[in-house]
Amino acid sequence: MPIDTRFDPSGSLVERLDLPPLGTGPLDGLTFTVKDNIDLAGYRTSYGSPAWRDTHPAPVHNALCVDQLLAAGGRCVGKAVADEFTYSLDGENPFFGTPRNARAPERVPGGSSSGSAASVANGLADFSIGTDSGGSIRVPASLCGVWGMRPSLHRISEAGVLPFMPGVSTVGILSAQRGFLDAAARVLLRSGEKPVASPKRLLLLSDMLEVADAAVADQVHAALEQISRHCGLVAEPVRFSQLIGEDLPLSYCNFEALRDLQTAEFQSTLGNWIETANPELGYVFSMAYGNVRQFDRIARLDSLTRCERLFEKINAGLPEGTVVCFPTTPVIAPLKGSLNNLDAVLDFYDRTMIATAFSGVGRLPEISAPLLTVEGCPVGLSFAAAHYQDEFLLSAVGEMLAA
Amino acid sequence: MPIDTRFDPSGSLVERLDLPPLGTGPLDGLTFTVKDNIDLAGYRTSYGSPAWRDTHPAPVHNALCVDQLLAAGGRCVGKAVADEFTYSLDGENPFFGTPRNARAPERVPGGSSSGSAASVANGLADFSIGTDSGGSIRVPASLCGVWGMRPSLHRISEAGVLPFMPGVSTVGILSAQRGFLDAAARVLLRSGEKPVASPKRLLLLSDMLEVADAAVADQVHAALEQISRHCGLVAEPVRFSQLIGEDLPLSYCNFEALRDLQTAEFQSTLGNWIETANPELGYVFSMAYGNVRQFDRIARLDSLTRCERLFEKINAGLPEGTVVCFPTTPVIAPLKGSLNNLDAVLDFYDRTMIATAFSGVGRLPEISAPLLTVEGCPVGLSFAAAHYQDEFLLSAVGEMLAA
Repeated sequence: MPIDTRFDPSGSLVERLDLPPLGTGPLDGLTFTVKDNIDLAGYRTSYGSPAWRDTHPAPVHNALCVDQLLAAGGRCVGKAVADEFTYSLDGENPFFGTPRNARAPERVPGGSSSGSAASVANGLADFSIGTDSGGSIRVPASLCGVWGMRPSLHRISEAGVLPFMPGVSTVGILSAQRGFLDAAARVLLRSGEKPVASPKRLLLLSDMLEVADAAVADQVHAALEQISRHCGLVAEPVRFSQLIGEDLPLSYCNFEALRDLQTAEFQSTLGNWIETANPELGYVFSMAYGNVRQFDRIARLDSLTRCERLFEKINAGLPEGTVVCFPTTPVIAPLKGSLNNLDAVLDFYDRTMIATAFSGVGRLPEISAPLLTVEGCPVGLSFAAAHYQDEFLLSAVGEMLAA
Repeated sequence: MPIDTRFDPSGSLVERLDLPPLGTGPLDGLTFTVKDNIDLAGYRTSYGSPAWRDTHPAPVHNALCVDQLLAAGGRCVGKAVADEFTYSLDGENPFFGTPRNARAPERVPGGSSSGSAASVANGLADFSIGTDSGGSIRVPASLCGVWGMRPSLHRISEAGVLPFMPGVSTVGILSAQRGFLDAAARVLLRSGEKPVASPKRLLLLSDMLEVADAAVADQVHAALEQISRHCGLVAEPVRFSQLIGEDLPLSYCNFEALRDLQTAEFQSTLGNWIETANPELGYVFSMAYGNVRQFDRIARLDSLTRCERLFEKINAGLPEGTVVCFPTTPVIAPLKGSLNNLDAVLDFYDRTMIATAFSGVGRLPEISAPLLTVEGCPVGLSFAAAHYQDEFLLSAVGEMLAA
């Protein structure tokens, strides 16, 4: 039964609802929200677009990942606002509003899993599930000061999640506490009793600090000193070119590889629908979609091969027992209204996507921990490990950060 | 411009067409067909169902994998018949017909990439792209006597491929000659100049021979003797339980793991559409869908965890340089009309899916080579390697089988 959204003054939710657990397990007693591009049976999925919602019937089945959570004891309490077609990192939806960034209310929450981050930051749920193709879990986690995990590409079932960028998109988790993230992740990852080793080596991807604001970089060093005191692991600075053994800048992952794959895949999923359905589009999205439409993917197909080669090289640089860390985003959340000029937008997106493309192209699991504060605003510190080393990463982060 | 299908007496194609290359490259001069669940711009995609085709507009963009082939010099000459919703292994579509099995015309071609296999077996194209979730490339390749490759899960972009079973479905290749398969695969896999090693070890998964007809098993031994004489690699028999280091039968991969994941994912993709659109369904599909509808996935969620554990164990049993082989299907193609009694259907499906579930749950690349002949009919001999070792497998098969 939908409840009036006035009961959610944070604007995190499209609808409050109450789907009771379908079993008992590690999520007993925990509540969660679901990003509005993941199906909930009987509720129309909007994809952040009223036009999409109104032309697609309500699904009959929950997304498989939702049923995994309900069967493990979780209770679903809301459908969370997403950016329009999940194609944004800022969290301002012209139709569904801008969820409140609890720790920095005058700033955007980040997107596209904006409502997922805000719902846990505002105390409406213990955790949330969202999706991440270019940073859509990690960015709002960083900017709202909550935990976020983008798992290894395709570790979590995407059945019942709207198709977006099949070679990049992941289902992942946001939460207010590390323990909730850990519990939900192990259910979704179907981890069983997988044994894991302790972290042997912590790398600091130093190029990321050059992309970041100086105050963010300072905070990273301070946090790493604390970790070193706590668990004895001293972060070793390494440049991207050293990690992959090839003289390429970190920004290559985004500008010469991942972004083209994302855009090409977007054309073949939502692009077809937009061109044929001619839906009402928000102003910002329609500008962005103009670029997607213009994109000449035949001319850029070499990017796909570069993605594959970078995947190999990044993972070869992350042997067993290795964790690599870097600031999740190079900046704190932009002020609301500040992203309405092109220079500001490009600076925010280009720098942020340089940070997020590393794990994207590496298909790495990445956990953003809410450890940094700059000008009173949160920023995440990210930890990543090799592809499919999700359970190792969860345990390693636990060892490094447990109080 | 659609051409009358009377020009294709084999019934492999829904439409002949002519999409010229968009560039030059390793596929110069080669023609290909595309399974009718993969988008071709300007042509409605049917998914093997007139009801689906008539309620979905023609896509504006090709699937990304189609553009990869066109840009590499390939020419697309046809849209190939698929089984209804690609949910079958026998290749008999009540609406689009049964493509001719060129080497055994009184028998079914196998499915669901029935038209893809038949189009290359009947000489209409050099290769074809299809999809494989539970055997839909490997089975028709085996039964029609052509080459078939199911690559590692998610190695090839699925953008523009209709969503079916996101955690299982792959795009792959069928072809009349190994060289064409190799060339098309390296384009789609974006292999670049990835270096590969020679095969060091050839395993024979011996449980597969117990599932197979005796005549098929005899042919496997004969083929392996030839390979041994040719390249010196002697196949070492190994049981599934030895390979994974746990006392489980081979059939566990199918009955206790993969089949449940497939069914659960099917509910959350096509299931929603079928329930809300109420389309006309073929008789055989509607029977099969009845089982999907009844499936209690909450009760079977443990299967997902078993899939994950089997993936780990199978891959741990396939170290670098290792190839494992087994008959692609346990039987030759069933006679047309023989699959109309339940016992025959269950025998064909259960035994065949025991064979195909191994690579399915292992997310392995598998190549079916048209090496065996039983009662004058073709059967494939499959070679598989560890997850993501696609380039190694292609080269290894080349070394083992090159004339």
